[in-house]
Amino acid sequence: MIKPLNGVRVIDFTSTISGPFCGALLADYGAEVIKVERPVLGEDCRRFPPFNKEGISIGFATMGRQKKGLSLALAEPEAQELFRQLAAKSDVVLENFTPGTMKRWNIDFETIKKINPKIVYCSISAFGQFGTLSQMPGYDGVIQALSGMMYATGFPDGPPTRTGSAMADYVSGTYGAFAIAMGVLHARTTGEAVHMDVSMLDCLLTTMDSVFSNWVNEGIIQQRVGNRLQYVTPFDSFQTQDGWIIIATANNNTFGSLCNAMGQPLLEDSRFIDNAHRCKNEKELKPIITAWTKQYTTKHLLDLLQKVSVPCAPIQHIGEMLEHPHAKERGMVQEVVQPNGMRVKVPGVAIKINGEVATIPETANAPDPGQHNREILGGLLGLSDEQIIALEGKGVI
Amino acid sequence: MIKPLNGVRVIDFTSTISGPFCGALLADYGAEVIKVERPVLGEDCRRFPPFNKEGISIGFATMGRQKKGLSLALAEPEAQELFRQLAAKSDVVLENFTPGTMKRWNIDFETIKKINPKIVYCSISAFGQFGTLSQMPGYDGVIQALSGMMYATGFPDGPPTRTGSAMADYVSGTYGAFAIAMGVLHARTTGEAVHMDVSMLDCLLTTMDSVFSNWVNEGIIQQRVGNRLQYVTPFDSFQTQDGWIIIATANNNTFGSLCNAMGQPLLEDSRFIDNAHRCKNEKELKPIITAWTKQYTTKHLLDLLQKVSVPCAPIQHIGEMLEHPHAKERGMVQEVVQPNGMRVKVPGVAIKINGEVATIPETANAPDPGQHNREILGGLLGLSDEQIIALEGKGVI
Repeated sequence: MIKPLNGVRVIDFTSTISGPFCGALLADYGAEVIKVERPVLGEDCRRFPPFNKEGISIGFATMGRQKKGLSLALAEPEAQELFRQLAAKSDVVLENFTPGTMKRWNIDFETIKKINPKIVYCSISAFGQFGTLSQMPGYDGVIQALSGMMYATGFPDGPPTRTGSAMADYVSGTYGAFAIAMGVLHARTTGEAVHMDVSMLDCLLTTMDSVFSNWVNEGIIQQRVGNRLQYVTPFDSFQTQDGWIIIATANNNTFGSLCNAMGQPLLEDSRFIDNAHRCKNEKELKPIITAWTKQYTTKHLLDLLQKVSVPCAPIQHIGEMLEHPHAKERGMVQEVVQPNGMRVKVPGVAIKINGEVATIPETANAPDPGQHNREILGGLLGLSDEQIIALEGKGVI
Repeated sequence: MIKPLNGVRVIDFTSTISGPFCGALLADYGAEVIKVERPVLGEDCRRFPPFNKEGISIGFATMGRQKKGLSLALAEPEAQELFRQLAAKSDVVLENFTPGTMKRWNIDFETIKKINPKIVYCSISAFGQFGTLSQMPGYDGVIQALSGMMYATGFPDGPPTRTGSAMADYVSGTYGAFAIAMGVLHARTTGEAVHMDVSMLDCLLTTMDSVFSNWVNEGIIQQRVGNRLQYVTPFDSFQTQDGWIIIATANNNTFGSLCNAMGQPLLEDSRFIDNAHRCKNEKELKPIITAWTKQYTTKHLLDLLQKVSVPCAPIQHIGEMLEHPHAKERGMVQEVVQPNGMRVKVPGVAIKINGEVATIPETANAPDPGQHNREILGGLLGLSDEQIIALEGKGVI
């Protein structure tokens, strides 16, 4: 597959999820990504569960894929100088520390810009580089809670609910990749450096649909409505004999087809004659449909509804999705071999280019801390073997 | 604020959420985005609730912001020819129809590439341009259900749960913007056209954390665990006297501080001596903490916990977040004036560049269908007023 970020060198000085995921995206599409970590221990994510049977953090292996490993003890002035030399020869610096940290290490945007006037510097953080909350640490759970996302997720009679993955991290990581691609375009077009400030909170706030719009325009706090859409009925999950199914009718045509499949003339019932009435009387319609779906298996219902062109889907687990031929045709599971020889499966590359699926080379694993020190410090910065050994001895790398 | 996509012209021929959100992101960062819609009616999203008091679809106003309006009846060969002429003068075509639709209209990637050898063509779809499921229509709810995301969201004793916004749309829209920025970089660097295939399903599958990793590496189907993290305890939501709070302890230090605040020496209890034990005995620890948090208001608990540096946050609604000074300092609510004079508030621009907040000009509203026909067809394609009037008469525009 074409790799549009070929020729872009990135210093990825990040930890946990948002930053490492962003760096992994850049590597997936061809950038040379150098993962900077403290010597020996490496970044925190290496010690985050789950681990595979061989004790490797699967999350670290996933997000470290296709990167090179450089170790630097950034509290040391010598390490800071090496970072700056590397930044002078790179296109992008990516970091996700609490705002102000990079300045303490003399590797902030203003400093790097002086030695590389075309640098694209991307900072991902919980709350952004400025603003009242900018110094507050923020995990994904904190951002999901503060943003209003948890408040709007879940059932009317249940508690606010966290999305089942660290969505604020993934959304901001993707936004970060977008910011960097734009930044490189800008730097190449104008010759100017640029500082991209990506806040997890700001990013998540742009994904909140009518939860956001209803408040700012109408002062309405949208309450939890479970799995249904508030403005289209029935468009919801229904319990079956052996699981759950999504039934998504958008208008009287598809609702009519559903009624035919059910053998019940609900469209003639004054409570359900059009979408507006169905939304108003949703609490009465849901038990009627559920009484029907509960009699059958999910598979039977899918066959029945697909025959009459009612949009529907099973609520299935990840294994059912990844075992489907479609996931295989789209290359959504890839495998790398770690430095210790152990195999780790990682998500595939999402965007397909010119009809091709990108394969991640088996050898493009997450590096050990400092695995590529010699290649980078020697090859790129021109340090001698003696100099590198001396730096190791002093604990700088 | 610097607009890194200045000078990039985009034909945005999309509907509903994923595509329009992608186009809005491009416009936010400086691209000239021309929204193509069928004449008079425009795209479906114009008729999607919620509406504001003046009857304007807030979703449409949000995602149509900062775009120009061109109307084209693409079933007509004359409209197809105008689309191709416009594509010849543009950098990007963005579309989100079912795969194959653009080919039927003779405006697919292969056709456009012949007249614009540097075109960046981005197709967003539910399942991608190829693969067993590629012809299946897919709403966000369908993708959340099939991907395994709903299965993994919610409580152990509750049903699978939909994230409270159309997250598959927003994630794929952001991925689309990343794809396009990379594509423009590639086209400018190599002079080659490129077709970006962005699938809602593939994109969501890359955001699923240990849900994905546990299955592909260990064959484990991760079950719903509510709001807690599976591998860190306590890191969960707790009910208070008047709401909910997130308490996020990461190690014995912060757990010890929590115990001090509670006045209970839980760290000395053999069930809770370290994170591994706390995870194992989570069902016993949660009621103990909840019995404490339920005695106090959220505000009181926040004061108490922040004093001893235990990470915590209120679970609040969107209004509480947007009323906070931080959201204002970050410009997260903007306002535009629609062609009919009505004001609509829209989310602000997430990425801040060089320390500046982007403001969306009040006049940069979502256009009426064909609002800029004269400017685009006359100014850009050189059609005369007579030709434009004739096209209107024939219903081509």
